[in-house]
Amino acid sequence: MQLIIGNKNYSSWSLRGWLMLKGFDLAFDEIRLPLFTDTFAQEIGRYTDTKKVPVLIDGDIRVWDSLAICEYINEAYLKGAGWPSDIAERSLARAISCEMHSGFVDLRHEMPMNCRAKGEVNASDKALADIQRINQIWTDLRTRYSEQGPWLFGQFSIADVVYAPVALRFASYGPTISEQASAYVQTILGHPAIQEWIAAAKVELEVIPEEEVLTEK
Amino acid sequence: MQLIIGNKNYSSWSLRGWLMLKGFDLAFDEIRLPLFTDTFAQEIGRYTDTKKVPVLIDGDIRVWDSLAICEYINEAYLKGAGWPSDIAERSLARAISCEMHSGFVDLRHEMPMNCRAKGEVNASDKALADIQRINQIWTDLRTRYSEQGPWLFGQFSIADVVYAPVALRFASYGPTISEQASAYVQTILGHPAIQEWIAAAKVELEVIPEEEVLTEK
Ligand SMILES: N[C@@H](CCC(=O)N[C@@H](CS)C(=O)NCC(=O)O)C(=O)O
Ligand SMILES: N[C@@H](CCC(=O)N[C@@H](CS)C(=O)NCC(=O)O)C(=O)O
Repeated sequence: MQLIIGNKNYSSWSLRGWLMLKGFDLAFDEIRLPLFTDTFAQEIGRYTDTKKVPVLIDGDIRVWDSLAICEYINEAYLKGAGWPSDIAERSLARAISCEMHSGFVDLRHEMPMNCRAKGEVNASDKALADIQRINQIWTDLRTRYSEQGPWLFGQFSIADVVYAPVALRFASYGPTISEQASAYVQTILGHPAIQEWIAAAKVELEVIPEEEVLTEK
Repeated sequence: MQLIIGNKNYSSWSLRGWLMLKGFDLAFDEIRLPLFTDTFAQEIGRYTDTKKVPVLIDGDIRVWDSLAICEYINEAYLKGAGWPSDIAERSLARAISCEMHSGFVDLRHEMPMNCRAKGEVNASDKALADIQRINQIWTDLRTRYSEQGPWLFGQFSIADVVYAPVALRFASYGPTISEQASAYVQTILGHPAIQEWIAAAKVELEVIPEEEVLTEK
């Protein structure tokens, strides 16, 4: 398999596709196309009509969109083990994952994923409402599944893949969240694949000024 | 089952949940909470913490988010028949559905679903790019699957549920699209459930000024 991704420092959707493969121990070749560069503009059209990363190529199958990549991997390689096995838990996991996929626009805009950033931003009320909703989701799940393991539903699942970039945003910008939610951020940060991703992000040379949003001190 | 929806005239995400149930002949009770009203504000919290429609209630299971509702129904009632049965086709159907779910923000903003509206709007370049991308998706699929039936993948699937509100936007605002894409809009409009939805939208009394965007003549 091949996975086309953007910059590790900035590309939150790419991290999802990548973590899905790494987190479930699947081998793949990675093709990195830094966002907003001539390379990206020249190369991306070879892989997808959407002109966006990530894209997964598996033989004749091409899947774009990070959530569709998760569902594909779940079916093709994991026999469904990417989601919780109980249908009630699985539908809850899909609900919060789809809620993330289609929402939290203000948070995503005002607190872009930026693995190297560490500091504060002035968040709008709308972004704060997004943070509160995510805090509620994480706190509820971590309370409910605390005995079963450290991930949202106990065991690592696609829900963790979907929310991982949010955890990295929280690690950068430090919004106020519950103790359980903070512990969950640490769980994400401690995942070996996330450590590998962040280490690679730190040595990337590209800077995207629009994504550098820390308030001046 | 119960489905909580917003106004039929305006609530595009509600239409998805509703069409999923009607389109696959599942019985349900409908609870309509008109958007941006006191009723909505007072009642929605009983059904979902997201404070958004649609929400599906099936015994103990509560699923919010239209795409998660589609996946739940597919698993719980359709034995997977909601998506194309071939894995390559299914991953393509999920890719375009997830692309819709997370994207086309400018189109959605500038051309809100409004079943009663018929006329023109001045679309920005970004909204026009969204329209072109959707036109490309529909044209490609309708060319490829023309022999198998009139829906995106021949047979009616979740991909049609996901794109149905876009077809209603195109019917309202008439952007320039291909012959195949126009025929697909007609296919959506001809679905008995869509006719039922539009008829109900037309007799609703609420008006949401922000969603009334036709250019003055
Ligand atoms: N819904 C898509 C979103 C993909 C997306 O927007 N990717 C961004 C990078 S994080 C991109 O490729 N942007 C390049 C561009 O828009 O030119 C997914 O989940 O994969
Ligand atoms: N991603 C969600 C979006 C749901 C959504 O935004 N619903 C709108 C109506 S179409 C809503 O409930 N808005 C009410 C509000 O924001 O107060 C889904 O697919 O169900």
